Amino acid sequence: MTRPNPGVVVLTGGIGGAKLVLGLSRLPGAPRLTAVVNTGDDFEHLGLPICPDLDTLMYTLADEVNPQTGWGRRDETWTFMDTIGQLGGDTWFRIGDRDLATHIRRAQLLAEGQTLTAATQTLCTRLGVRERLLPMTDTPAPTRVITDQGSLAFQHYFVRDRAEPVVRALEYGGAQDTAPTAAILAALGEPGLAAIIIAPSNPYLSIDPILAVPGLRAALRKAPAPVVAVTPIVAGAAIKGPTAKIMRELGIEPSAEAVAAHYGGLIDGFIVDEQDRNMVCAIEKLDLPVRICDTIMLSVNDKIRLAGETLAFAASLSPKRTETTGAQ
Amino acid sequence: MTRPNPGVVVLTGGIGGAKLVLGLSRLPGAPRLTAVVNTGDDFEHLGLPICPDLDTLMYTLADEVNPQTGWGRRDETWTFMDTIGQLGGDTWFRIGDRDLATHIRRAQLLAEGQTLTAATQTLCTRLGVRERLLPMTDTPAPTRVITDQGSLAFQHYFVRDRAEPVVRALEYGGAQDTAPTAAILAALGEPGLAAIIIAPSNPYLSIDPILAVPGLRAALRKAPAPVVAVTPIVAGAAIKGPTAKIMRELGIEPSAEAVAAHYGGLIDGFIVDEQDRNMVCAIEKLDLPVRICDTIMLSVNDKIRLAGETLAFAASLSPKRTETTGAQ
Repeated sequence: MTRPNPGVVVLTGGIGGAKLVLGLSRLPGAPRLTAVVNTGDDFEHLGLPICPDLDTLMYTLADEVNPQTGWGRRDETWTFMDTIGQLGGDTWFRIGDRDLATHIRRAQLLAEGQTLTAATQTLCTRLGVRERLLPMTDTPAPTRVITDQGSLAFQHYFVRDRAEPVVRALEYGGAQDTAPTAAILAALGEPGLAAIIIAPSNPYLSIDPILAVPGLRAALRKAPAPVVAVTPIVAGAAIKGPTAKIMRELGIEPSAEAVAAHYGGLIDGFIVDEQDRNMVCAIEKLDLPVRICDTIMLSVNDKIRLAGETLAFAASLSPKRTETTGAQ
Repeated sequence: MTRPNPGVVVLTGGIGGAKLVLGLSRLPGAPRLTAVVNTGDDFEHLGLPICPDLDTLMYTLADEVNPQTGWGRRDETWTFMDTIGQLGGDTWFRIGDRDLATHIRRAQLLAEGQTLTAATQTLCTRLGVRERLLPMTDTPAPTRVITDQGSLAFQHYFVRDRAEPVVRALEYGGAQDTAPTAAILAALGEPGLAAIIIAPSNPYLSIDPILAVPGLRAALRKAPAPVVAVTPIVAGAAIKGPTAKIMRELGIEPSAEAVAAHYGGLIDGFIVDEQDRNMVCAIEKLDLPVRICDTIMLSVNDKIRLAGETLAFAASLSPKRTETTGAQ
């Protein structure tokens, strides 16, 4: 009998998080991987349910993602999009012809009564994705962005308005749910779970919506595995997207330290980029173990390397710090 | 002040009828054209409302129809269709990427509360169609085909099963409606209406569903214009589609005469093809004026010519026979 590979749970948004999840999936003796995916970006568009982060994860793991953009499908065509504008439909959110099949099939599966969790599993199976992708909620939990231009639906802020409005606050729809899904609770409660990783996604737009689901933070604290976050901020800037801009708008200096503090109390360790060595002491003062890594993931090998280092860091923290503390 | 062009109403199914409607629209001093279109073929597919005959009319009049097939759009791509199969969606009903935009936009307009009549108008305006296309009903009125293989939804019979099952009977969904739409009644009641034309569509699959809407036959009889039908059967065969096969299966010899008899009591004149000159006497015995035309519409000029001859025939019957009879 072989021992099953250890389980790993990743909390993630879209493009940035998908890179690390891909790395984890390609590790030799890959862990049994569960990604808990932000659905705060989800919305109904052209009458279809769109789940941008779930799709980015799914396409990335299926090796179907558009390598130029990091979202959408490779070998895409845009005939539908060219035509829907002619018919008076919105064109600010770009949906390729291949991508469209996902949204239409998902709409069908949901209309047949499947949960989003089950529909995601069905789509993943069809695309040959063996990792488990779990939406953070089965019910819509839209993030709203409170800006200097009013309260905006997430995609209106992010895509239509190109993240240009100044963010004053964020409202997470998941707070209306009563509990995490059974699948998420089962994944977090699994005996032998090796690590829970907070991906280098936008803390405010991608991770906090997940953490806002009532009961999720408690389930993380109760989970047997250490929680490790990977910094999305390197040398004061985000690798991709508006994380640094939003932090400044919220009155927070964009730095790895600030992200570590943001997750304080929830995580057992933090990975900073080697460009931010000077922050290690400050973060350790938060009573948080730190590991220094090259967190920039350009090649697949970069992703696998960071994934491996993240798991090794988590292993070094096991058994979980809070439990160790409790035993002292 | 110029007198407005006379109004003409055409009852029509898809491809065959669309040819004549196109001819009417291209006549010099074109009549103000209203097409009352079969919606018995409509169905929900992949979660979207599909209206094959309305779309064939719309694309034909917009010069957007695929000239090879007579349905669907020209310059079409099939990326969506290739992909939906991968995701477990049905592929027996082919929807191109451009065509898909119509169905998605229509679904949106209906979801916003527009009637099918209004949604069709919106789409037509966007595509530059100036003729008025009126669905025979605003509520779903699906035709069911009772066959030797059981009762089949129309598109299951027609497309999925390639019209191969033997037809025993037909059931028209429109019979559940309480009345024709206000737009149809207004078109039929318009003062100065020049002609009502029954297009050379399949009488059983395309025209009878329209005639089955309660009140529609009465509205035709009351209308001020003569009703003229163009034969869909030439020399015992249909130009296109399974009309002759269905007639045989229903125990009716497929002939222009049989079609004229089928419409008997409703029409004021009948156009047979010049290949069926030998049937003129038999049809005239039905107390029905007959005109002989070349009804084969291959070129645009063929369509315009037949459209002109049909209107001239209608004019020769005006004022309406039944009214003339009543005045004698």
